[in-house]
Amino acid sequence: MLNKFMKKFTKIAAFTGIVLCGLSLPAFADDTVSIEMFTVNNVWMMVSTFLVFIMHLGFATLESGLTRSKNTVNILFKNVMIIAIGLLTYALIGFNLMYPGDNWIIGGVLGKFIPGIGTDEAGITSAYSAGYTYWTDFLFQGMFAATAATIVSGAVAERIKLHSFLVFSVIYVGLVYPFLGSWKWGGGWLDAKGFYDFAGSTLVHSVGGWAALVCALMLGPRIGKYVKGTVKAIPGHSMPLATIGVFLLWLGWFGFNGGSVLSADPGLVSYVLVTTCLAAAAGIVGAMLTSELFLKKPDLSMVLNGSLAGLVGITAGADVVGILDSIIIGLVAGVLVVVAVIFVDSKLKIDDPVGAVSVHLVCGIWGTLAVGIFSPDHSFFVQLLGVVSYGVVSVIAAAVIFGIIKATMGVRVSEKEEHQGLDIGEHAMEAYDGFQIFTTV
Amino acid sequence: MLNKFMKKFTKIAAFTGIVLCGLSLPAFADDTVSIEMFTVNNVWMMVSTFLVFIMHLGFATLESGLTRSKNTVNILFKNVMIIAIGLLTYALIGFNLMYPGDNWIIGGVLGKFIPGIGTDEAGITSAYSAGYTYWTDFLFQGMFAATAATIVSGAVAERIKLHSFLVFSVIYVGLVYPFLGSWKWGGGWLDAKGFYDFAGSTLVHSVGGWAALVCALMLGPRIGKYVKGTVKAIPGHSMPLATIGVFLLWLGWFGFNGGSVLSADPGLVSYVLVTTCLAAAAGIVGAMLTSELFLKKPDLSMVLNGSLAGLVGITAGADVVGILDSIIIGLVAGVLVVVAVIFVDSKLKIDDPVGAVSVHLVCGIWGTLAVGIFSPDHSFFVQLLGVVSYGVVSVIAAAVIFGIIKATMGVRVSEKEEHQGLDIGEHAMEAYDGFQIFTTV
Amino acid sequence: MLNKFMKKFTKIAAFTGIVLCGLSLPAFADDTVSIEMFTVNNVWMMVSTFLVFIMHLGFATLESGLTRSKNTVNILFKNVMIIAIGLLTYALIGFNLMYPGDNWIIGGVLGKFIPGIGTDEAGITSAYSAGYTYWTDFLFQGMFAATAATIVSGAVAERIKLHSFLVFSVIYVGLVYPFLGSWKWGGGWLDAKGFYDFAGSTLVHSVGGWAALVCALMLGPRIGKYVKGTVKAIPGHSMPLATIGVFLLWLGWFGFNGGSVLSADPGLVSYVLVTTCLAAAAGIVGAMLTSELFLKKPDLSMVLNGSLAGLVGITAGADVVGILDSIIIGLVAGVLVVVAVIFVDSKLKIDDPVGAVSVHLVCGIWGTLAVGIFSPDHSFFVQLLGVVSYGVVSVIAAAVIFGIIKATMGVRVSEKEEHQGLDIGEHAMEAYDGFQIFTTV
Repeated sequence: MLNKFMKKFTKIAAFTGIVLCGLSLPAFADDTVSIEMFTVNNVWMMVSTFLVFIMHLGFATLESGLTRSKNTVNILFKNVMIIAIGLLTYALIGFNLMYPGDNWIIGGVLGKFIPGIGTDEAGITSAYSAGYTYWTDFLFQGMFAATAATIVSGAVAERIKLHSFLVFSVIYVGLVYPFLGSWKWGGGWLDAKGFYDFAGSTLVHSVGGWAALVCALMLGPRIGKYVKGTVKAIPGHSMPLATIGVFLLWLGWFGFNGGSVLSADPGLVSYVLVTTCLAAAAGIVGAMLTSELFLKKPDLSMVLNGSLAGLVGITAGADVVGILDSIIIGLVAGVLVVVAVIFVDSKLKIDDPVGAVSVHLVCGIWGTLAVGIFSPDHSFFVQLLGVVSYGVVSVIAAAVIFGIIKATMGVRVSEKEEHQGLDIGEHAMEAYDGFQIFTTV
Repeated sequence: MLNKFMKKFTKIAAFTGIVLCGLSLPAFADDTVSIEMFTVNNVWMMVSTFLVFIMHLGFATLESGLTRSKNTVNILFKNVMIIAIGLLTYALIGFNLMYPGDNWIIGGVLGKFIPGIGTDEAGITSAYSAGYTYWTDFLFQGMFAATAATIVSGAVAERIKLHSFLVFSVIYVGLVYPFLGSWKWGGGWLDAKGFYDFAGSTLVHSVGGWAALVCALMLGPRIGKYVKGTVKAIPGHSMPLATIGVFLLWLGWFGFNGGSVLSADPGLVSYVLVTTCLAAAAGIVGAMLTSELFLKKPDLSMVLNGSLAGLVGITAGADVVGILDSIIIGLVAGVLVVVAVIFVDSKLKIDDPVGAVSVHLVCGIWGTLAVGIFSPDHSFFVQLLGVVSYGVVSVIAAAVIFGIIKATMGVRVSEKEEHQGLDIGEHAMEAYDGFQIFTTV
Repeated sequence: MLNKFMKKFTKIAAFTGIVLCGLSLPAFADDTVSIEMFTVNNVWMMVSTFLVFIMHLGFATLESGLTRSKNTVNILFKNVMIIAIGLLTYALIGFNLMYPGDNWIIGGVLGKFIPGIGTDEAGITSAYSAGYTYWTDFLFQGMFAATAATIVSGAVAERIKLHSFLVFSVIYVGLVYPFLGSWKWGGGWLDAKGFYDFAGSTLVHSVGGWAALVCALMLGPRIGKYVKGTVKAIPGHSMPLATIGVFLLWLGWFGFNGGSVLSADPGLVSYVLVTTCLAAAAGIVGAMLTSELFLKKPDLSMVLNGSLAGLVGITAGADVVGILDSIIIGLVAGVLVVVAVIFVDSKLKIDDPVGAVSVHLVCGIWGTLAVGIFSPDHSFFVQLLGVVSYGVVSVIAAAVIFGIIKATMGVRVSEKEEHQGLDIGEHAMEAYDGFQIFTTV
């Protein structure tokens, strides 16, 4: 029945991706836009910036909700710090490192370290860009930067030392993310190869996801998670918080993907929003069906992750795949994320409290490869090359940084503190004063 | 004193509605707008789309907050599914069914079933519409569609079988809502009669509200709600969640009403926002005074519903009533909702856990009739005709669909499951792991 | 090391503030803008309005989170009422009182009392303003108005009588705030002196902060707060709620500051957003370091207040200080707020449950004076004059109003009610039905 629907659906819908590929509004052709167009483009990019900003609240509530109440203050603290770290390091060095222009140390691979931000009058006119001012550019991209560390935060939750995490974040967000970003969005070597990643299935989500995997592995599982070969579920303490998180992340994705058009181009932006939403919706359906199949019951956390899976999956190709493709990409992502969560947890025995690796890494890879599958203009092998290149360097970078921190500061809280909760241990306060709380794990 | 204020107030304010009726900005007159105007219109409509999207989080948190913690996972799950169902069914069939253009099976009454969505290049230019692209149109309207099911969700909370609810939602959102919508917004027979419903007091809120009434009736009250003729209050488990919900719904209404102008027309949109906000504010005041009068204490859930009542009430005529009218409409809605909640609960003994019928149906009807009262250009009787027509068909449709589901799948969870909570029964998980929770009802 | 960074940083960044001061986009020079520009400006201002609106949810959740669960319903109730009161009083009298145009009773000091709002056709075209319609103007400014009362709400939480607070809010928001606002934004005497307050470090935050200080003093501390010379910490009941509040407030600040440009001017608005965000980020870092120093542990509530401190601090000069300046202003604010919270609590023994005085008054003063320090075009002494003038009149007004209410209605709930919680006492309901809750204080 689904097949039948899809065939019918295809007749009308499937050509749209192809049609859109060749389109661009005339006014954008030569970057000489009217002051009105420049202003509306810039408004759109600022709105997108706000939406990406609010994703950080989404991450904070999702991660809190899916973990135990004794570590909630710690998780909230980390997420507040991450946005500060992201913006300040991006102002200090990241923005220039990610978009080197002609200032490369190694051409197409490593930009020069030019501290600070600033512009002359041209930076606030369309001479800088038809779609936004220098300042909008900085803030929009700066909001993205912090995301990588946020992804790691979820995977290492409930057992990592606060200061060690903050140091890792400063380095990974401040140096590794912009360095890797320059390869594609900064006009580096992968861009030259024709690699395509529209809004960051790889550049943001996989780069964060690889680090999440490495750090979770090096940190080891939470106490009580894997006992004598059995896998113990550690339920989150607040599903409303987690659900708020997912809705806010979806909301944020309107800006994450919609803003990645880098102008308010009506056809392209609205098309991207449609593929983005349909992929999220299909991800929900895919995760629901898969969780009913494997877990017998429709699982809320799986469905929540399903919508994120669809969103991560569509992010690489939201502008170049067809409507039906976007539904397929989301549906597959929704299935994938459930299987991956179970596999990572039960087979690999890697303790990832929020499923960050499954959502951001697995679906980030899927989305990037999907561009090679569904878009006629992009090569599957170049997409694969991108996935592998980013994977290798992300893993090495994360391992080296986290390894050095482990050897020097240590990365894991004491067993006693982990039992008691990091809220008391790291912050000397509790998240829910006055509530009777008991501990199962 | 209030009278005195109103009289003074009227002198300055009341003429504005009339003034505005005759206005439209010249640029919009013949739908040939500049690319800049088209772009800014489309940006506005996309922003409105995001705002309507976030209403779904508002509904999810409001409904969760006003019910018991043992059913929270179930409620969140339903609300996540509804947005997925809404978008996918709207892509599959709803959008074409609601806006048939020339493709009617029965002229002005029932559109043709044309599956899928898609457009050619014209769809992303102002040739499609001066205010938005085809894709923006689809997404904005798609976000509306799911709302109808969400309204039902609240009324049937804490006792309905998950899968039965999902099947009902697919049919009601996928077929009934767009079918009924076509009568007015699709250019059907009620549009031809001069019926007016600016943003959906009837088309969205009453259509959802009638189904809420029917389903709540057919489902019966929660166990322990009406025992031996006494009415027992079943308090919600989290007023912060409920309050978050109401603020997010108000936020969403900026897009719900503001976007219903279908362009960024500065005078009209900003006027609509003012009437919308003043009605919400007046609804709060009306509900506060009424709840102090009838319940002795200023009741938070009544005040929250009061703001929603004002918003639902102003939705039909936000662009055609005066400033003072909008305050009166909101104030009356705020009074009405408190009286209706008490009446439905104590007299009719229909168990509606969140007051969905009172907010969406009663105030939806009030708002639609208020257009006939306050706007000189619209007939009270035509408004009444619309209210009745939508009522009759909504009730029949909801009853038939819900009846068939009841006869086949069943609609109500077992008594044991209801006692234990649907979170365990339907999803095998709890919303608040680790919290000591006790049960009063 | 920080010094070194700053010096490097300065070379590139520090000139930007100066460069920007002289800039304005040509199209804005003579207020004759195209319909397209008018429309995009108005869209921007409407979006800013929504963002300021959502700050009220931010305040509601922050205040709830930082106080005890037994007073949560009361706090939410107050915050819902405040937005209604703010909008209705602003429509009734506030808007005209704040922007008298030529209608002064005492020139530059006190405007005429002209009830109601309304406009002719010119009000919805660029003849009214190049940046927005009359209605957008009203709603944007109306959203600001309620903020003053919200600030007070936090300082008097957990012990004030509901109706007394509402009466105070009506008068302070309806009369005092617009009266004081007219001095600068209404073109009054302080504007003529060259006083500068871009978005309201003084006009909004200090005006609210002074009243918060006065009311908290006159109300006295919560029972159990200061016992036999010892200061007892009364922890908040939900750090997730508090964190949600701070993120929403930051989100709202994009509109609070960004909208205060009063048009969508791409260079200026985006520049303001960057200084705003960097100040918030620096405030977080400042508060973290200071709290580690003074409190030994990195304190989440301090870091949350740190971001707000940075935001309040940058609000007066977001458009006229340099990039590096904004970081310094935020950093200092972050330090200041921690010191102030400790000082107010331990030394002054004024019980301010959420730190409203430290955040809004102390950092509001700092931000206003910082304009005189960092902007070459503004005089420190005029800034100081403004701070003192607003302080004196705010204190007197708040003391007189609150004093009269205290003498007539009373302001403080009974000791029994305070112990039991205001939720039961004022509203006869609980915020968290079914949760096991215990009381420490």
